[in-house]
Amino acid sequence: MQRYSKGARAERELLDILKEKGYVVVRAAGSGVNSISPDLVAIKNNKVYAFECKFWDRSNLSLEKDKIHYLKEIQKQGVISFVAWKIPRLGWFLIEPKEFEEQKKNYSISKKKVLEMNRSLDLL
Amino acid sequence: MQRYSKGARAERELLDILKEKGYVVVRAAGSGVNSISPDLVAIKNNKVYAFECKFWDRSNLSLEKDKIHYLKEIQKQGVISFVAWKIPRLGWFLIEPKEFEEQKKNYSISKKKVLEMNRSLDLL
Repeated sequence: MQRYSKGARAERELLDILKEKGYVVVRAAGSGVNSISPDLVAIKNNKVYAFECKFWDRSNLSLEKDKIHYLKEIQKQGVISFVAWKIPRLGWFLIEPKEFEEQKKNYSISKKKVLEMNRSLDLL
Repeated sequence: MQRYSKGARAERELLDILKEKGYVVVRAAGSGVNSISPDLVAIKNNKVYAFECKFWDRSNLSLEKDKIHYLKEIQKQGVISFVAWKIPRLGWFLIEPKEFEEQKKNYSISKKKVLEMNRSLDLL
């Protein structure tokens, strides 16, 4: 439960940051039947962003294959997709779906690579 | 409870129709704290739509002032906003926020006017 509530708190934090920046933000409903969704959708100046939020304290971030495929799929409709990783003590980092590497059972990216890219929310 | 579940069913129906039409659709999380949201956000070909869904069997449809103001507000960021009214036995009708008339306590529009405009989901 604690992990869930920390994740939910991180998602709410990102939502508030985006609103501060002038985005219209919609939080997606929890796991619907047969539906994958991003956690947040944000819109500003005719641009649409989708965010999958993660709050993990590990040396690698991994995501289900379905999630990465979905984020890539919606890019075809003009959605700018990001995985937003909140790394404890370091803040938020944006990762493009294509930057994850396919593994046998999921997609993953190392914290090292994410820190090197250093793509912060200032880019939004 | 019955009214809620019929409303939820109508919302799910609209979601499925939009998906069939090739839209990426995100259902918004239920009444968040201090947050107004549309029921559905749909994206296709770089265009973003927001829908407030209603399933009412009355001669007038009314919406809270906050909701109409929100739908008008997000249009400034490029969101195409609609109230989607499912009228029993007649189907879905799209209404623009500006087409509602301000009343003392809410905004409303008559079924008569909506049927005259006859704006169906075929327009999407």
